[in-house]
Amino acid sequence: MSGIHVELAAPYLVFLGDVGDDDHAKTGFGILHWRGEHCAGQMRLPDCKVDLGLPELDVEAAAAAGVRTAIIGVAPSGGQIVDAWIPPLVRLARAGIDIASGMHSKLGDIPDLEEAAREGSARLVDVRTPPRDIPVARGRPRAGLRVLTVGTDCAVGKKYTALTLHRELTGRGVPSTFRATGQTGIMIAGSGIPIDAVVADFVSGAAEMLSPDNADGHWDVIEGQGSLLHPSYAGVTIGLIHGSQPDAVVLCHDAERSEILGLEGYYPVPPIHEVIDIVLAAARVTNPGCRCVGISVNTSRMTDAERDNYLADLERQAGLPCVDPIAIGVSRIADALVKINK
Amino acid sequence: MSGIHVELAAPYLVFLGDVGDDDHAKTGFGILHWRGEHCAGQMRLPDCKVDLGLPELDVEAAAAAGVRTAIIGVAPSGGQIVDAWIPPLVRLARAGIDIASGMHSKLGDIPDLEEAAREGSARLVDVRTPPRDIPVARGRPRAGLRVLTVGTDCAVGKKYTALTLHRELTGRGVPSTFRATGQTGIMIAGSGIPIDAVVADFVSGAAEMLSPDNADGHWDVIEGQGSLLHPSYAGVTIGLIHGSQPDAVVLCHDAERSEILGLEGYYPVPPIHEVIDIVLAAARVTNPGCRCVGISVNTSRMTDAERDNYLADLERQAGLPCVDPIAIGVSRIADALVKINK
Repeated sequence: MSGIHVELAAPYLVFLGDVGDDDHAKTGFGILHWRGEHCAGQMRLPDCKVDLGLPELDVEAAAAAGVRTAIIGVAPSGGQIVDAWIPPLVRLARAGIDIASGMHSKLGDIPDLEEAAREGSARLVDVRTPPRDIPVARGRPRAGLRVLTVGTDCAVGKKYTALTLHRELTGRGVPSTFRATGQTGIMIAGSGIPIDAVVADFVSGAAEMLSPDNADGHWDVIEGQGSLLHPSYAGVTIGLIHGSQPDAVVLCHDAERSEILGLEGYYPVPPIHEVIDIVLAAARVTNPGCRCVGISVNTSRMTDAERDNYLADLERQAGLPCVDPIAIGVSRIADALVKINK
Repeated sequence: MSGIHVELAAPYLVFLGDVGDDDHAKTGFGILHWRGEHCAGQMRLPDCKVDLGLPELDVEAAAAAGVRTAIIGVAPSGGQIVDAWIPPLVRLARAGIDIASGMHSKLGDIPDLEEAAREGSARLVDVRTPPRDIPVARGRPRAGLRVLTVGTDCAVGKKYTALTLHRELTGRGVPSTFRATGQTGIMIAGSGIPIDAVVADFVSGAAEMLSPDNADGHWDVIEGQGSLLHPSYAGVTIGLIHGSQPDAVVLCHDAERSEILGLEGYYPVPPIHEVIDIVLAAARVTNPGCRCVGISVNTSRMTDAERDNYLADLERQAGLPCVDPIAIGVSRIADALVKINK
């Protein structure tokens, strides 16, 4: 058992609600990027500031287009379903369209929606509900190899980097499994454990459950969460690090981010070398051999020349392969990874 | 609002179940020590290896003695209610005696017990149920002063040290509040938040809620949990450290402990200086001025001479007041604490 198995019926309608910026629409962008072939359209409330570039569908158009699942594609801080979303979600469910959510608050706890889903024979799929039988972590070393993405902040490309690295390894014929830990990753992969929804005592245990013993030479590529130096979410991060027992970590960073997301005014993004040091100190509690094999940077707002200079500078300072996973790809990080043997 | 408010009706019967050793009966010993005047007796199953020295009461004797609450005084790893405990708990509830539990599994989820409580008009009090409205941590600096106990492992005296320090401050006329974070502490204090039962995303937020803005010169003395270097529970610990924004920490240690409790064979207890360094690095994320003001050591298995040598050696190495909170008391740590001003 390695967590929740979800099956979403395609095609999808991506519901964006009234989201104010791209950073809080990670689920929508992720589904579009990795499962774009399944995305038939988007639905937005009047105040919505985000546009995925998909056809705008109302309930009737979605039903006519054969949409089978409306995926809530936004994730406000705190992960609660917003009241303004409920009327359109009710109409979708009544039209027989499944609703999939990665929010902390549960679709099934909204009486109107529950009733509409019953009437429309639609499913309410809460992806952020962890399995019930998670044990306390035991710390026993496990067979197989593991790489975990970590970050200098939230929303810096940890999921994207892990998915890209998984694709790169698979392309080289290296046996590998992507292990999802967040709502978007779980929707993309079809299984995983929503690690930030696990009760704190069991976070490391959930990470152990997610990447069980595996064959020699097999890589679990584990989606990281939060940041060890993030004042809100470090508990999730350290539990994931300890329980994953990573043989390697890849540090993810946003080149333009100067302050921790959502806590502006108090917390600058910490220096990269400081994050690597503290992550390796934590990782070596359960895997003394853990090393950092590369840095994956979002440089999307730079020109090509700026990007080249930035990555070359960083590479000189860190002594590690530094790439942008979109502009350049992660093959140099994969090169470092496949040299590791246990 | 600073978390759950519990009110347990005295006198108490301490239920010890079939617990195998004193380390897993911390709740029973804590209630006996800090609220001994309310403890009328104990109830034990045949395999129980722990003895609090209280009168043995069966259900009839407990009822005759006027017992109003049976407190589950044991905490097995994982915090689940054991099947063998249910029949005696059912008989107690049917006799009208309230049941108080700090387990992760809920009393109200056991149908037989729920029915018995209804029949007997007894209350089922789940102390380890966190409040429902915990926000994500904001990281905003708060007024007032905070000291947090931290440890080299679980079960090394973090609660005892915090309660003793609170008593010492109160005795000196220093305004101070004990902030409970575990089931025993909450039962002793009558309020608190069971931090290890909070969903991982909200652990730091729960710690912020527990020790809100307070008057200048007022100390919140916060009960620590787990250990940053414990492979099972570090997520709880780091969330508590970040959210508490401590001005000071007191490190707790068991002089006889060589391996991490429950994970024997893989994890030695880390060196004290290493724990202090990593705790201060974490604490300074949200409070750059945090310092360690002393070390509180359980030396209960040493002779007086051994204790004196051990603490003198440790004090030379660490450059901090080192005490046994039972044998010596924490007044030297309180001396260091009250010198701190913000």
